Amino acid sequence: MAEYSAPLKDMRFVLDNIADLASLSKLDGYEHAESDVVDAVLEEAGKFASNALSPLNKSGDMQGSHVKDGVVTTPDGWVDAYAGFVEGGWNGISAPEEYDGGGLPSAVALATVEMWNSANLGFALCPLLTQGAIESIIAHGTKEQQDKYLKKLVSGEWAATMNLTESQAGSDVGALRSKAEPAEDGSWRISGQKIFITYGDHEMSENIIHLVLARTPGAPAGTRGISLFIVPKYLVNDDGTLGERNDLKCVSLEEKIGIHASPTAVMSYGDNGNCVGYLLGAENKGMACMFTMMNSARLGVGTQGLAIAERAYQQAVEYARDRKQGQAPGMPKGEMTPIIHHADVRRMLMTMRANIEAMRCLIYLNGACLDRAHHGPDEDARTKAMGMAELLTPLSKGWCTDLGVEMASLAVQVHGGMGFIEETGVGQYYRDARILPIYEGTNGIQALDLVGRKLGLQGGEPVKNMFADMQETVKALAEAGDEMTAMSMQLNLAVTALKEATDWLYGNAPNDPHAAPAGATPYLRMFATTVGAHLLGRSALKARAMLNDGATDTDFLKSKIVTARFFMGQILPTATALLGPVTAGADTLFAIDEELLSA
Amino acid sequence: MAEYSAPLKDMRFVLDNIADLASLSKLDGYEHAESDVVDAVLEEAGKFASNALSPLNKSGDMQGSHVKDGVVTTPDGWVDAYAGFVEGGWNGISAPEEYDGGGLPSAVALATVEMWNSANLGFALCPLLTQGAIESIIAHGTKEQQDKYLKKLVSGEWAATMNLTESQAGSDVGALRSKAEPAEDGSWRISGQKIFITYGDHEMSENIIHLVLARTPGAPAGTRGISLFIVPKYLVNDDGTLGERNDLKCVSLEEKIGIHASPTAVMSYGDNGNCVGYLLGAENKGMACMFTMMNSARLGVGTQGLAIAERAYQQAVEYARDRKQGQAPGMPKGEMTPIIHHADVRRMLMTMRANIEAMRCLIYLNGACLDRAHHGPDEDARTKAMGMAELLTPLSKGWCTDLGVEMASLAVQVHGGMGFIEETGVGQYYRDARILPIYEGTNGIQALDLVGRKLGLQGGEPVKNMFADMQETVKALAEAGDEMTAMSMQLNLAVTALKEATDWLYGNAPNDPHAAPAGATPYLRMFATTVGAHLLGRSALKARAMLNDGATDTDFLKSKIVTARFFMGQILPTATALLGPVTAGADTLFAIDEELLSA
Repeated sequence: MAEYSAPLKDMRFVLDNIADLASLSKLDGYEHAESDVVDAVLEEAGKFASNALSPLNKSGDMQGSHVKDGVVTTPDGWVDAYAGFVEGGWNGISAPEEYDGGGLPSAVALATVEMWNSANLGFALCPLLTQGAIESIIAHGTKEQQDKYLKKLVSGEWAATMNLTESQAGSDVGALRSKAEPAEDGSWRISGQKIFITYGDHEMSENIIHLVLARTPGAPAGTRGISLFIVPKYLVNDDGTLGERNDLKCVSLEEKIGIHASPTAVMSYGDNGNCVGYLLGAENKGMACMFTMMNSARLGVGTQGLAIAERAYQQAVEYARDRKQGQAPGMPKGEMTPIIHHADVRRMLMTMRANIEAMRCLIYLNGACLDRAHHGPDEDARTKAMGMAELLTPLSKGWCTDLGVEMASLAVQVHGGMGFIEETGVGQYYRDARILPIYEGTNGIQALDLVGRKLGLQGGEPVKNMFADMQETVKALAEAGDEMTAMSMQLNLAVTALKEATDWLYGNAPNDPHAAPAGATPYLRMFATTVGAHLLGRSALKARAMLNDGATDTDFLKSKIVTARFFMGQILPTATALLGPVTAGADTLFAIDEELLSA
Repeated sequence: MAEYSAPLKDMRFVLDNIADLASLSKLDGYEHAESDVVDAVLEEAGKFASNALSPLNKSGDMQGSHVKDGVVTTPDGWVDAYAGFVEGGWNGISAPEEYDGGGLPSAVALATVEMWNSANLGFALCPLLTQGAIESIIAHGTKEQQDKYLKKLVSGEWAATMNLTESQAGSDVGALRSKAEPAEDGSWRISGQKIFITYGDHEMSENIIHLVLARTPGAPAGTRGISLFIVPKYLVNDDGTLGERNDLKCVSLEEKIGIHASPTAVMSYGDNGNCVGYLLGAENKGMACMFTMMNSARLGVGTQGLAIAERAYQQAVEYARDRKQGQAPGMPKGEMTPIIHHADVRRMLMTMRANIEAMRCLIYLNGACLDRAHHGPDEDARTKAMGMAELLTPLSKGWCTDLGVEMASLAVQVHGGMGFIEETGVGQYYRDARILPIYEGTNGIQALDLVGRKLGLQGGEPVKNMFADMQETVKALAEAGDEMTAMSMQLNLAVTALKEATDWLYGNAPNDPHAAPAGATPYLRMFATTVGAHLLGRSALKARAMLNDGATDTDFLKSKIVTARFFMGQILPTATALLGPVTAGADTLFAIDEELLSA
């Protein structure tokens, strides 16, 4: 099993041609994101991922994290790897320069997030959550809070966690019961138990800043009565030094199917009545603050889906080149053929490759939209970009994490019997990937977000804009001719079906409360796959243009066209066929009584 | 987590209406398979599965099997459970009565195999392999071999294994190197190492009969030079008592993603030059003998896919009824709704249910075809039934095991965060299921078997017969009218597309050696899903007829119609859409050079 190798060329191609890095580097605050700087950053990140993180992936899985007396021990090598991560400045490369961040666009940062997670998903979860906390404190913190916490979080000297879930409050966050009572000094006293807290405790950073959702006295029921609190593991003195240990602790860790290295903690706050927290944002507006954090985290988790698929793909290709079985047509007689030459194996590899390239387009574009939403030249541009970013987020999270599982499973299959043996390593990706469709909002929740919120966002403008973009690709492919003609027709069929499904949802959701939820999951799949095809179509057009302009890297550029053709011909048709399932309504879903379902 | 509960009513419905039990019980040798006998057998089997096997499933997974000094220890409870299994007469219920078997049709036996595997897949693998050996010795053994081994194997006092794989010979069985040298007494001396040997050693049965593929001196290369040998763990004296320990041993066990309880052994034969084996069938005809065993095992493994999906479904329904989150439309205000009332959760459960019912139809029908192939009234009927059984086998193995993984993954998703925690138990199904698309011929091999052998079998008669059956269902659904009309149209679209794909394969495979392998995997999916829809359509027609005849079990019968509608509307369309992918040819598969794939 070789170590992970960052696909720098593919990443750069997507940054240039889909995220439009050149235009990002013209935005206020991103001027230094010049081509050679980005190249250097990606190259260095690739080295760190391959050399420092990837070698710990399997040993971390086997060893796992453990808790004793409330103190979590991470696997061997974790503390040093984290120190190297902080030292390299990787933790804050997209954070604002005023907090000592790198000030790079999110699109570029996401390429590094992809690398950390391909190399070692169990490790990379820790900085992923810190990232969400940074964004939340930037958006909602007071000046004092920002001064107190941001530089340390940006550097990574302090890590952060996200505390939503309680045993009775999972997807239904509004059901949480943790409490916050005001103290005389203006701070709050937090009490309650939280579950599924990723990196709830560890010794890699000198402090951990927990962001905790809780209810204040007399708060309204449901999500409208939730407030967000900053709850440091060690209280922070006014001079920035660490004070006393706060009254919170890790009670236990979960035994999980995968990501064994990542400690998933049950956290208890205020067992001794003295857990100090500080309100972040306004009282009862915790959900809004949490959504800042969650949107960032959702895109991050989508990136994890892409990342695990990429890692699994690399290993599958390597195995398929080494392993010899049988004899493929046209290969030398009398010797066994490397299985990469068998059509069915090649189908699996191309399926992974095409999906990975489509996911990367979607994820980096989503990041670029966020960059434009925050740094765009004017209010209109920023609003438009934010609408698109918000529309794409459930697609990134839902589709890329479903595919993460599916592609990891396919990589196991490429390995045959060896795929089921833990030693091979590919099984870890299959186990690790399974959390991705669940956490940061299950993919069912993502689908509901898409049909329930995103279709109507900004009066439907982002959806209209996406359709306009897709139709432009259909047209450009048709105009390009040759092998692009078939792609144009295939994409057009998909866009037309998606439009019909969308119109059906707009038409039926207002009258039938079950209509949109019933079709939400296949609709997300259909939407995301069609967007993926559109972006690969755009990639193919760019590659063709470069070839026409005499670019020398012909094999690479031609491969971009092949991947697009494969995606349109092999993957897109089943998504297009979801029109019927999306628009069937809830009738057959509920036609069998629940009693009989379990009979 | 409740124990498994056998879905007796569903099983019986499929046996009656799809496998046509009434007609099976009219065949020579199956006269005693009367309705009340079958009911009693299924009911007792259900009790044993629930009470004896299911409670050991999770503990067996946690404890696993272990090897020390060549002796394998199975998890606590395994030895007693196996003794109970033997005592109950479950091991040989479909074996001929002359060997003390139950003489029941395979279709009925498969219902019990489903139960054992739903209850405890890691346990049930052991008798699954014994079953294959029984069939192989019946088909190819000498009278002496049959007398010596069959009664003990049928009772289960002795277990059996299947030894094909060597490290360089997986899918490519012909590459194996194990040797057999003739001895003076007419027996053979076996030497070589085999890997992935399920239940290669254990102490549950007093003897283990290994069936081992090896090469005799001067044998031709490849699969035409392979012979099959009976290699007992303890040699068997002429009076049937056990003699000395044979020269074979378990070297080690694999660490696997799942089925931890099932010992997957590396077996070494003849380390001391004295491993005694007996030729089974003719020299160099081992592949034919092994195929007898494999075809049985492939249908058994397909049944495992169905079984794990059923178990995962039961647990998902139970969880969805208990777990409350959020508020579904139309449910009581001010309280949380059991998630089973959320449309998206219901979609996941119905997807599992519909796929499970379709798989059960396919598997039991496949079993019934085997019964008619062996007990049919005349040569023509037997040949026709065997053709259908052989056509269905790769569909049963390939489709049902892919779905086993997919449905187990869906059951994890229904559980949300709890699904990722080992304690919940559903994660075990996700881990266990992953071996099913791999062993007994990877699903890629199944797809190649379908396009390469089964399409042309008997001059294409079985395929023609299946199309005729499907078109009859299309017609009958149309004639039935009402909600059956839409089903008829949906099924007709699918059958028409499948016909087109089939014709394309018939037309292109002879000229392009890559054409059929390139489309094989989506073709298998398309074929099996269409057959599944056809069988559910037939179920719906039968249910409707019974309702029209005044049957009283109206809710149950109506649910059969709903499931068929759901399958046709929600699951079938994406299979129909595989026409394009199947008929695209190998062009894009091989258009990117292997070097660039790993760049």
